[in-house]
Amino acid sequence: MATYVFGHTNPDSDSIVGSISLSYLKNQIGEECIPTRQGIVTPETQFILDKFGFQAPELKENVAGEDVYLVDFSDLAQAPKDIKEATIKGIVDHHKLGDITTSTPLECWIRPVGCSNTIVKEMYDYHEVEIPKNIAGMMLCAILSDTVIFKSPTCTKKDTKACKSLAKIAGIKDIKALGMEMFLVKSAVQDSTPRELTTRDYKDFEMAGKKVGIGQLEVVDLSVFDNMKDALFADLKALKEQGNRHTVMLLLTDIMVEGSQLLVVSDDCTLIEKAFDVKLENSQVWLPKVLSRKKQVVPFLEKTFN
Amino acid sequence: MATYVFGHTNPDSDSIVGSISLSYLKNQIGEECIPTRQGIVTPETQFILDKFGFQAPELKENVAGEDVYLVDFSDLAQAPKDIKEATIKGIVDHHKLGDITTSTPLECWIRPVGCSNTIVKEMYDYHEVEIPKNIAGMMLCAILSDTVIFKSPTCTKKDTKACKSLAKIAGIKDIKALGMEMFLVKSAVQDSTPRELTTRDYKDFEMAGKKVGIGQLEVVDLSVFDNMKDALFADLKALKEQGNRHTVMLLLTDIMVEGSQLLVVSDDCTLIEKAFDVKLENSQVWLPKVLSRKKQVVPFLEKTFN
Repeated sequence: MATYVFGHTNPDSDSIVGSISLSYLKNQIGEECIPTRQGIVTPETQFILDKFGFQAPELKENVAGEDVYLVDFSDLAQAPKDIKEATIKGIVDHHKLGDITTSTPLECWIRPVGCSNTIVKEMYDYHEVEIPKNIAGMMLCAILSDTVIFKSPTCTKKDTKACKSLAKIAGIKDIKALGMEMFLVKSAVQDSTPRELTTRDYKDFEMAGKKVGIGQLEVVDLSVFDNMKDALFADLKALKEQGNRHTVMLLLTDIMVEGSQLLVVSDDCTLIEKAFDVKLENSQVWLPKVLSRKKQVVPFLEKTFN
Repeated sequence: MATYVFGHTNPDSDSIVGSISLSYLKNQIGEECIPTRQGIVTPETQFILDKFGFQAPELKENVAGEDVYLVDFSDLAQAPKDIKEATIKGIVDHHKLGDITTSTPLECWIRPVGCSNTIVKEMYDYHEVEIPKNIAGMMLCAILSDTVIFKSPTCTKKDTKACKSLAKIAGIKDIKALGMEMFLVKSAVQDSTPRELTTRDYKDFEMAGKKVGIGQLEVVDLSVFDNMKDALFADLKALKEQGNRHTVMLLLTDIMVEGSQLLVVSDDCTLIEKAFDVKLENSQVWLPKVLSRKKQVVPFLEKTFN
């Protein structure tokens, strides 16, 4: 019986590449695995797939009765709705430990590093399996994406070391140039609908029993959003109402200036102001140096909500 | 700030030895760790400590404000009461994934193997740290205990491989003789009170919202219990009432015959009969071949309760 390997809902490059890189490894060591995904492929991920000659994994949103392996998440909110009817064989993740539980023993490779593919690299080394050149290139891109080309505070020595090793395998000389090429693709937001943008890299969190959604868009120049702020706000409001959420936020991250414009729609904006010790103006605020939702946003919100 | 490393409540040898073996490893790689424990040391564990010249780790039941590292569990029911006020830096475990969550990224080394110390051995290899002779001896005993000298269905190739390697380091030639020596110590139950015996290796589980406690005693000959059945049943009833539990069970495991006598006190004994497809007589039943609570008892109960 094959195991389906997939990342979280609203899959980012780490989720999609991780499903492919982990499945290849598992197949090499005799565990039959099939990479799948829980949502649409972003332009950034499509760029990576195209560059290294891969197809997107098949879409699979129902997993009842199946064996599954999770990449890049351990929260029920980011899992298929019927995950409790599946058998979870393992988890590779680099986030805080979420609320997924299992009824059988499993393997978990969870590390406080910048990217799940850094851990998948560790797994290849552990099993002494050679990484194909094109998979190494995709893993490199996933790490560059998650660590914002090594600028994010989530980036660790293990991530940079993995990147050097993967670049060597993939035959890529200028790592940062590859990263910039990818982030330029990511910055081309003008052809997307507001809903595509707010949900492209979006996660729901439970904070003190309240549902809090946080999206993030990382671009090389925030001016791309100048003419779409109203449309983005309108969609955040719709998202909030449709999901019975307490708060929905969007981080517009400028990876060159290194900081994020935070857009907020909330039942209680003072909680957000308190979390970051700021005052919102027109429901927005500039957060200097903030690049990481995981490390610089979520913990402060959780602390204030709890 | 030092990290406290400890196993579950009612610590078994894997929990105590794991706290020592993991702390030593972490100290070698520059992460200051202190081994502690959440309860009294069993005669089996005391035998191991004495044999290899170690003191029991210090008792520590409050961890608010501390950094902690968990060994051999991921369930809140087996953690200190104030675990939510601690920062969990990591988890080494070989059970199903429990309901512990964190608010920061961490490392988890969770594997479907027979013993946490098999995973700690993997961590020593990963970090290329030499295992001291006496720690290797204790880790070997922990694995022999958890795998019932390789007889348990939870025992994997990784466990036997780790044991061979640890025995070599510790200079132990006859692994099975060491295991038997240890289980003979474990079988000397006549000097213990019923409460000491029912709770020696005892775990509470949440099953469909109901609290189910399961203890286990592994001996080389079940006749040691002949004169204490009534006293054990009386204590199981007391445990059930004191903890508002739906069910309390005790597995009396004969490691030579390979099977377990199950003693049951429950609000609904038919659930237990259904789980194992048996009929209880005098609230007891013999379960042939059943050695592992984790693999041969808990999953069947969970399935029936849910």
